[in-house]
Amino acid sequence: MAMAAATPHSLLLKNPTNPLKPTSTQLAAFPTTTLSRLATTRKPISITCSAATTTTPLPTTPSTSASSDRVFNFAAGPATLPENVLLKAQSELYIWRDSGMSVMEMSHRGKDFLSIIQKAESDLRTLLNIPSDYAVLFLQGGATTQFAAIPLNLCQPDDTVDFIVTGSWGDKAYKEATKYSKPNVIWSGKSDKYTNIPSFDSLEQSPRAKYLHICANETIHGVEFKDYPTPKDPNTILVADMSSNFCSKPVDVSKFGLIYAGAQKNVGPSGVTIVIIRKDLIGNAQPITPVMLDYKIHAENNSLYNTPPCYGIYMCGLVFEDLLAQGGLVEVEKKNKKKAQILYDTIDASNGFYRCPVEKSVRSLMNVPFTLVKPELEADFIKEAAKEKMLQLKGHRSVGGMRASIYNAMPYAGVEKLVAFMKDFQARHD
Amino acid sequence: MAMAAATPHSLLLKNPTNPLKPTSTQLAAFPTTTLSRLATTRKPISITCSAATTTTPLPTTPSTSASSDRVFNFAAGPATLPENVLLKAQSELYIWRDSGMSVMEMSHRGKDFLSIIQKAESDLRTLLNIPSDYAVLFLQGGATTQFAAIPLNLCQPDDTVDFIVTGSWGDKAYKEATKYSKPNVIWSGKSDKYTNIPSFDSLEQSPRAKYLHICANETIHGVEFKDYPTPKDPNTILVADMSSNFCSKPVDVSKFGLIYAGAQKNVGPSGVTIVIIRKDLIGNAQPITPVMLDYKIHAENNSLYNTPPCYGIYMCGLVFEDLLAQGGLVEVEKKNKKKAQILYDTIDASNGFYRCPVEKSVRSLMNVPFTLVKPELEADFIKEAAKEKMLQLKGHRSVGGMRASIYNAMPYAGVEKLVAFMKDFQARHD
Repeated sequence: MAMAAATPHSLLLKNPTNPLKPTSTQLAAFPTTTLSRLATTRKPISITCSAATTTTPLPTTPSTSASSDRVFNFAAGPATLPENVLLKAQSELYIWRDSGMSVMEMSHRGKDFLSIIQKAESDLRTLLNIPSDYAVLFLQGGATTQFAAIPLNLCQPDDTVDFIVTGSWGDKAYKEATKYSKPNVIWSGKSDKYTNIPSFDSLEQSPRAKYLHICANETIHGVEFKDYPTPKDPNTILVADMSSNFCSKPVDVSKFGLIYAGAQKNVGPSGVTIVIIRKDLIGNAQPITPVMLDYKIHAENNSLYNTPPCYGIYMCGLVFEDLLAQGGLVEVEKKNKKKAQILYDTIDASNGFYRCPVEKSVRSLMNVPFTLVKPELEADFIKEAAKEKMLQLKGHRSVGGMRASIYNAMPYAGVEKLVAFMKDFQARHD
Repeated sequence: MAMAAATPHSLLLKNPTNPLKPTSTQLAAFPTTTLSRLATTRKPISITCSAATTTTPLPTTPSTSASSDRVFNFAAGPATLPENVLLKAQSELYIWRDSGMSVMEMSHRGKDFLSIIQKAESDLRTLLNIPSDYAVLFLQGGATTQFAAIPLNLCQPDDTVDFIVTGSWGDKAYKEATKYSKPNVIWSGKSDKYTNIPSFDSLEQSPRAKYLHICANETIHGVEFKDYPTPKDPNTILVADMSSNFCSKPVDVSKFGLIYAGAQKNVGPSGVTIVIIRKDLIGNAQPITPVMLDYKIHAENNSLYNTPPCYGIYMCGLVFEDLLAQGGLVEVEKKNKKKAQILYDTIDASNGFYRCPVEKSVRSLMNVPFTLVKPELEADFIKEAAKEKMLQLKGHRSVGGMRASIYNAMPYAGVEKLVAFMKDFQARHD
């Protein structure tokens, strides 16, 4: 059983010249390495890693199980990416198809890169079923740049906007909006340490607010909207920061005026920000808007006004392809629910040894914060998990405790392993 | 001699499972491919590719000449990157060292990524001999974002700033500055189609200008400052957009208040912008400055206020390492001068068949625009060059003609091959 615990994730070693085959040196080293690693675990952990949970390979990638020395990375973002996407990117990093060059070297105005960005947009439109009256923009600067760009594009300085603040990111968005509009916080979860979401009926929305802003999933606090408020004024649009749950489930885009997301959680590396905006909202930026924050400029130029983050967009394109190959967001959501379920179940069944502070109905499928009943054990928990190749489980510095981010690309086997470790850790310390 | 023309760049074929060794199938196909390719050239081109011109491998990369199916890419940016850098990036894309993950997946606050960004900054400081009273920032949004950030950080709305406009990029910077300051164009090369740079003595600078802005190398027009103007008012600082000649030669950073550059010409992929700013200039941003455009925020947080473009920064770090391994910027400049020399010499010795409109004393070492005396041949020139695996030679759409961008990573052999092609093309069409 001890062997099973580490299969297939940690026992496949890597040959640097051919990642698919371990070298003989590595194979020779293998039993010793494994034994010394397992020796650090006081009690072997039993995990069944079923083949059904491995990621579907990209159609163009040869099927492979070259997990080798990979860890399970529970970081909140940048975050784990699908293994098959990474292997495909690796295989064509030096020369992309018949282009004679890396994607990183391509002119953003050449036909090769145009085919990459156009396919990325088209696949994203398919995934999210984005209506044709919405523009899709690939930008830079992260969600934090959008905190300014949104009021600059959608408001004049005296316009009112509403914020439902369910965590730190919503709060940051609100603060930035004070520079360019008159924002109201119509609800804040701060006094409850951001552990819940209000009932929408009770919200007092501002008449004539230009928009109502939500953060669809608060990465730090693990609070996720399960449905969305409808602005009372038909001219008020709904704006959502979906950075940390973008493409993790189907979304009815037509309910929103604007959706934005940093790529580095679910759909790519950092450095790409995606904005989906209803086209009629474009073109009214305040005169002080930097040209790079003006949606009109980017929409008119198909995200190629200046040099875009080409390689990041290419990586997002590979992820979109992978999500489609998995059967689209309906299937992806099923997997995400299954992963989150076993983790929350473990927490809730621990008789208080583990505790998730978030109200059950709004617990995030993506970011699972939890604490230990004995906080003095937290450092050991993180250290021992790291020895088992489960990394980045420390909670955000503003919250403490632990946080497991289990985005799309976290395999079921990773959450299974975490859950087994948690049970084992509890058995040893309860 | 015909064989020599294609060595080593096009005759080494690639084995997809091991890029260092061609497959037997590819080797079998080799003579036919070569012959049919050469058959398209009416007259064989003679090129000597000396071993001395290959790039020095990164110390940690095994030496390799796996040029395989690579082309010579003369794009203005994104642009060609050093082959050894690409091969190293490829080798560790899937798993970086002992981290168990790709650089793209790393938390930007984890020790691994911190080591990457800190080494990148440290190597850049060594390369450019950056004084300790200057901050180095790794940002997003390209130089175009800096066109707004600079006046927002260095000026109040009524402050005067001066611009010397020697091409399209300087003009764009000026236009954006009108939103946040009172800029004056104290000299413009527009009436001469941006082919020269004024003598500094004759410039009428504005008293009390906050800064004097130049574009050190105009990518589109191929005009490059060989030395730099000194602001007459000791409180006026010199600001330079060095996007397209950054790290192509030594620069006395202490002469500047601020230097900025998009990475995608000489030092990395697109999506990273580097700002080098004297620290005492930080901290006076206008109240309307978006938080992401405020240098104080980024300086205080060592470029980690929000998620930076991690993979791009990693790539820049590999390039910096490579430039140091080459002997630093003194050596790099020598190579760049040698490459530019043979290209400009070919143009000037063509009896007007080729023509570079730029005044000789300010011709760029990086971007070489030229026209044909018979413009009707331009399409053929570009098409035939492409057949010879020399791509992206078309001039910018606003200028026409041809442009060869020969950044740091363009090997001498690439320029040699271009020059041989140009002579051959002339011989066939003069």
